[in-house]
Amino acid sequence: MIGRLNHVAIVVPDLPEAVARYRDALGAEVGPPQDLPEHGVRVVFVTLPNTKVELLEPLGEGSPVEGFLGRNAAGGIHHVCYEVEDLLAARDRLVASGARVLGGGEPKVGAHGKPVLFLHPKDFNGTLIELEQV
Amino acid sequence: MIGRLNHVAIVVPDLPEAVARYRDALGAEVGPPQDLPEHGVRVVFVTLPNTKVELLEPLGEGSPVEGFLGRNAAGGIHHVCYEVEDLLAARDRLVASGARVLGGGEPKVGAHGKPVLFLHPKDFNGTLIELEQV
Repeated sequence: MIGRLNHVAIVVPDLPEAVARYRDALGAEVGPPQDLPEHGVRVVFVTLPNTKVELLEPLGEGSPVEGFLGRNAAGGIHHVCYEVEDLLAARDRLVASGARVLGGGEPKVGAHGKPVLFLHPKDFNGTLIELEQV
Repeated sequence: MIGRLNHVAIVVPDLPEAVARYRDALGAEVGPPQDLPEHGVRVVFVTLPNTKVELLEPLGEGSPVEGFLGRNAAGGIHHVCYEVEDLLAARDRLVASGARVLGGGEPKVGAHGKPVLFLHPKDFNGTLIELEQV
């Protein structure tokens, strides 16, 4: 069911500093910062040959990553995103297996403009999983 | 400098349970468990089309992932591994940039039989980074 690892999302307290680390110290290809006010984050994409790393910082009030940063002041890996071909079929299979889908189980439009769902970390070894329909 | 994302490593408290979740609920291709006593872990590889997820549980006394599990009883994402072509050149560039390399800075043989180094999470937004020479 799950396909490619679409991205690893890392929440950081200081986006320019994180960008400098990935660009200068790790020599990665780093894009420009993008504000996504409807998602409450500012994001930078790090392009690797086979997937992406997304560096996120809170944007505006009540950002969904604010709480994470409160618990992890230095930042940390926030979630992984796996691609699926049929998000509703994936959801139904997951729910049937006993896994919990966050936010009522209805897909929302994610940061890439595609339908996404998040799975409860307690059902997946403490890992927040995003599923994105591709 | 960094190339492909080689893998995302997730430490889990119960490997068979995690395997069942990835195989049955997420429908992923999951390999057999492998004991790596020299690394103090039992590992299962989840093969995705573009990268791997490694599910790890402690093996034996003094496993290097025991402390992580003590702090994260449900498990969690432990590290990400980026590939590099020349590990010593990567290390020298990182050290010159002010980043700290763990364990004295000399490469060790990692779980895949290749030279690896780990970078201090405090220098990379709370993310433990493994570099593997390919």
